[in-house]
Amino acid sequence: MPDTPLLDKVQSPADLRGLTDAQLRQVADELRAETIASVSQTGGHLGAGLGVVELTVALHAVFDTPRDRLIWDVSHQCYPHKILTGRRDRMRSLRQEGGLSGFTKRSESPYDPFGAAHSSTSISAALGFTMARELGGAPDPALGDAIAVIGDGAISAGMAYEALNNAGHLRKRMFVILNDNEMSIAPPTGAMSSYLSRIYTDKPVQDLKHAVKGALSYMPGPIQEGARRAKDLLKHATVGGTLFEELGFNYIGPIDGHDMDQLLWVLRTVQARADEPVLIHVLTKKGKGYGPAEDAADRGHARAKFDVVTGKQQKAKPNAPGYTKVFAQALIDEAGRDPNVVAVTAAMPDGTGLDLFANAHPDRMFDVAIAEQHGVTFCAGLAAGGMKPFCALYSTFLQRGYDQVVHDVAIQRLPVRFAIDRAGLVGADGATHAGSFDVAYLANLPGFTVMAAADEAELVHMVATAVAHDDGPIAFRYPRGEGEGVEMPERGVPIEIGKGRMIRQGSRVAILSFGTRLGEVQKACETLSAKGVTPTVADARFAKPLDREMILGLARDHEALITIEEGAIGGFGSHVAQLLADEGVFDHGLKFRSMVLPDIFIDQASPAAMYNVAAMNAPQIVDKVLSVLGEDSRAQSA
Amino acid sequence: MPDTPLLDKVQSPADLRGLTDAQLRQVADELRAETIASVSQTGGHLGAGLGVVELTVALHAVFDTPRDRLIWDVSHQCYPHKILTGRRDRMRSLRQEGGLSGFTKRSESPYDPFGAAHSSTSISAALGFTMARELGGAPDPALGDAIAVIGDGAISAGMAYEALNNAGHLRKRMFVILNDNEMSIAPPTGAMSSYLSRIYTDKPVQDLKHAVKGALSYMPGPIQEGARRAKDLLKHATVGGTLFEELGFNYIGPIDGHDMDQLLWVLRTVQARADEPVLIHVLTKKGKGYGPAEDAADRGHARAKFDVVTGKQQKAKPNAPGYTKVFAQALIDEAGRDPNVVAVTAAMPDGTGLDLFANAHPDRMFDVAIAEQHGVTFCAGLAAGGMKPFCALYSTFLQRGYDQVVHDVAIQRLPVRFAIDRAGLVGADGATHAGSFDVAYLANLPGFTVMAAADEAELVHMVATAVAHDDGPIAFRYPRGEGEGVEMPERGVPIEIGKGRMIRQGSRVAILSFGTRLGEVQKACETLSAKGVTPTVADARFAKPLDREMILGLARDHEALITIEEGAIGGFGSHVAQLLADEGVFDHGLKFRSMVLPDIFIDQASPAAMYNVAAMNAPQIVDKVLSVLGEDSRAQSA
Repeated sequence: MPDTPLLDKVQSPADLRGLTDAQLRQVADELRAETIASVSQTGGHLGAGLGVVELTVALHAVFDTPRDRLIWDVSHQCYPHKILTGRRDRMRSLRQEGGLSGFTKRSESPYDPFGAAHSSTSISAALGFTMARELGGAPDPALGDAIAVIGDGAISAGMAYEALNNAGHLRKRMFVILNDNEMSIAPPTGAMSSYLSRIYTDKPVQDLKHAVKGALSYMPGPIQEGARRAKDLLKHATVGGTLFEELGFNYIGPIDGHDMDQLLWVLRTVQARADEPVLIHVLTKKGKGYGPAEDAADRGHARAKFDVVTGKQQKAKPNAPGYTKVFAQALIDEAGRDPNVVAVTAAMPDGTGLDLFANAHPDRMFDVAIAEQHGVTFCAGLAAGGMKPFCALYSTFLQRGYDQVVHDVAIQRLPVRFAIDRAGLVGADGATHAGSFDVAYLANLPGFTVMAAADEAELVHMVATAVAHDDGPIAFRYPRGEGEGVEMPERGVPIEIGKGRMIRQGSRVAILSFGTRLGEVQKACETLSAKGVTPTVADARFAKPLDREMILGLARDHEALITIEEGAIGGFGSHVAQLLADEGVFDHGLKFRSMVLPDIFIDQASPAAMYNVAAMNAPQIVDKVLSVLGEDSRAQSA
Repeated sequence: MPDTPLLDKVQSPADLRGLTDAQLRQVADELRAETIASVSQTGGHLGAGLGVVELTVALHAVFDTPRDRLIWDVSHQCYPHKILTGRRDRMRSLRQEGGLSGFTKRSESPYDPFGAAHSSTSISAALGFTMARELGGAPDPALGDAIAVIGDGAISAGMAYEALNNAGHLRKRMFVILNDNEMSIAPPTGAMSSYLSRIYTDKPVQDLKHAVKGALSYMPGPIQEGARRAKDLLKHATVGGTLFEELGFNYIGPIDGHDMDQLLWVLRTVQARADEPVLIHVLTKKGKGYGPAEDAADRGHARAKFDVVTGKQQKAKPNAPGYTKVFAQALIDEAGRDPNVVAVTAAMPDGTGLDLFANAHPDRMFDVAIAEQHGVTFCAGLAAGGMKPFCALYSTFLQRGYDQVVHDVAIQRLPVRFAIDRAGLVGADGATHAGSFDVAYLANLPGFTVMAAADEAELVHMVATAVAHDDGPIAFRYPRGEGEGVEMPERGVPIEIGKGRMIRQGSRVAILSFGTRLGEVQKACETLSAKGVTPTVADARFAKPLDREMILGLARDHEALITIEEGAIGGFGSHVAQLLADEGVFDHGLKFRSMVLPDIFIDQASPAAMYNVAAMNAPQIVDKVLSVLGEDSRAQSA
């Protein structure tokens, strides 16, 4: 445990406001040590928090949180903020079942006025709070200022631009801190990123320090002149940022985000004087102050538990290759055979495995930045241009490009391939990252083909299927984490569109699985067979088009049919129900059940624990089968 | 019919390329007259097309369409383009069943390389074509240059910014024409709009003409110097546009979009010399050259059939108030009683009725520009700030903000009210504007309440319900067009959450309607009753939470249960099926059918004709009832 005598006295941000600047510097140093120690025990997002330690202390010291609404974009960087805002003693429960969320969360603290986990929402939220204040909105606590802290990667998203555009137009007092560390999860890409770099390349921060200090030393003037003079000062402090000024913001910066003096001066100035939207451009270093993070390629973005001295992480050795890597390798292989295969990621080269693809085929990988809307339509353009684009996104982030999927891809029946990673429940990232809805929102689009891989070998075949499929859009989904450990094929072989596969032939009840719950279904069958029940099991592979023949056959030959999928209602099971209804199968009775994700947002835990909450693990499948067949499971096992 | 001797000789854009500049000017004049004459007979989007007549002629004359991909953003402005590209003789079928689409459409012409109808997609698509060319993509015809034409309203969308950001980074030759008419459907709002105005206010176009002409007169130099010199020239021609330059584009402009000489000079220059992305800022006038359009507040945006001389439109007198107006008036009334009610539109004040709301409550209406992502999260911020935000969007455009609905609204359980206009099939705008998916993609979100109004009186009550409902998000959907003509309530009365209503008690079969198909259901019942079949009819009102008691009662008391809704599979009917399955209702047999929109994108026609295609009008409801009951309808009616 680090020695943190001053931090120990800070029970809430209010305690910071009585400290001297020198003491605030010390609090920051102690907070950094505490953050490192804490994450070393839990794992989690380390680098982002270390980059904003000084900023966190300065913001809470200068602004009147929680009355002033401090909104952390994405909120990977919120650990120091959590430590300062009454949650220090619970940091060891971070990202664990029943513990603190790894993100800001409204239900967790009044100091988290607007939760986040997806990127680029903070300016919109801050503008909402700002206009609510202007209109007399009276939540508890009362509304003060809104401050959004957003990274240089996150500000590349269209949504952030839309919010700047609106805020610059409404011209009310609000604050955007652009936390520029030249790094989101991966190094940011795009013209905005180059633009930001140019700002401080043209005028290094060292020179600026004096300019900023000089300008700000004017500050305490007659109060009646305050507003006008503050505006002039803000202008003088600017050496770049015309882009933001064109959008209606007062721009200050860039300033050194690890220099507490500069931070305090600037924040106090704008806090005292601003009467319009202000953007403060702060340069920080991701992983700052912790060598092993600073030296890492990802600046310590996400870490398993680690040894504080060596930085060495305790990573469990996987039993089987992870789905993401299997996808990447399969796509690399396919691209080796087909020069038209290209891959697109939205700022997640590592998370989607496309970093590996880029190593193998550097000209054919596009990182479009945090820009799912553009990314999807860019793929549509590539497809219309004769290419075979693979749009690799997490299920939850594909939601960002939904209209583009409908309007640009589906309606035009363009053969964009959607590789949907992180399907289903994802574990420590919790509800905000769950991939629950994609089957429902894709399978009802005319002309779409929607697949789910039951294991990593199936995934390889589905990549091949997608390459071969040129008649309209196709999507395949697969979960986070390691595979089932099945034998891997030499190469992928396209699956016949709309054809499922029988896994085991049984009687009375058929379980029709879509996706990787198949493993739990198999486990359930072991238990059931000991009880004399031998279900038929099939892997649907397709939610669209359905394997009508197989499904109607299963319904005909069994008294009960149970579907299971890692998705919410409206997806695979609903399509099966519609088929059965249309065909009149229900007319004379069928014990049909559809196991879907429950109607709640499930908080972080291990994926297995989350599926327990969802009642979709083997024991619950056993229960479902027995109850459908009218055989009570407790009676049986007694 | 206007006299169009030169236009008559233009069978395709290739014919333009042999004409003199003077002849091109004449073609433009004739094309304008032809466009006016044509739209006067069909109705449609007039103003946008008139604004780009010269631009259309110049682009097709200078670029090698269809090899060069010309992409019209939104494509309201594509009528002159359609006339020039072999579709002149079919213009009288515009927006009618079996006729030309009102938008560009890939299946309609090789000159429409990328269809559109939603805004701000064109730059992404153009970049897709550009990178496909760079990678050797070989569609038919082969790939030339990509040119996106995008309005000043459309470029305010985050998606366009994302695309600029990516294109500026990739730095390949491509063209963006910023068609700046200070007007999308309504006058654009936001800081970007002010910025664009400043560019030409600072330096009026009149002065610029000389600058541009002067700079461009340099042009024909030794070819080896071409690239460098072109770049210099582009810089010289620039008097603004630093924002675009910061994003990696060469900026030229603003130029006069009705001055064919300027247009041709500039386009020929960039066509000959550009080796990087170029943005050409063109000033045009919506409705240009037709007095009644120029003089109208909306610049002749959308017109019913009209008299060319007087401009007077032949609008059918509505029989009942339209749903949009009913919504607006109800919300105005509620806002009069509750100061926390605010309304948000994304650049559609007129289409959503919020223009009326703004007249009544000017401080409480926000037009966030074409920015659905921001708009939804802005509402989430307003809700967190204690307000009661109504986010009024068309169903099809809410797709643009889907992730924000999930991540910012639903997960945080914030009481944002979604007023979803244009639910179901919409008529002349066709498949791109159909509101087919919202029930499916909202009703599976935990904590959401989802309603559909069966008639305009119900809509008034649902507005009141939404005002009163503070426990999480709530949505209510209603269609385009006029209401059912029912008696209107004095004021809205909140409906109990999750309670449907019985419409008529019958026997054997129950029809459970969600939304305005209820009218057709009632008609069907008249027919059926003549055949001795008297269905029970209920209005579900809620897709979520379902009225379990009512639905299970209907299932218990009838041999058949039929749901009907103006939406795709995965929505109301799927939720009912899930309930029935969970409760074991199917175990012993129920004739259950779910009438949903079919698995096709339905082209434009009258709404009634589209619902015929969808098999959801009274006669098809009759058929469905009779076939479910095992009584053949043809036999019955014979």
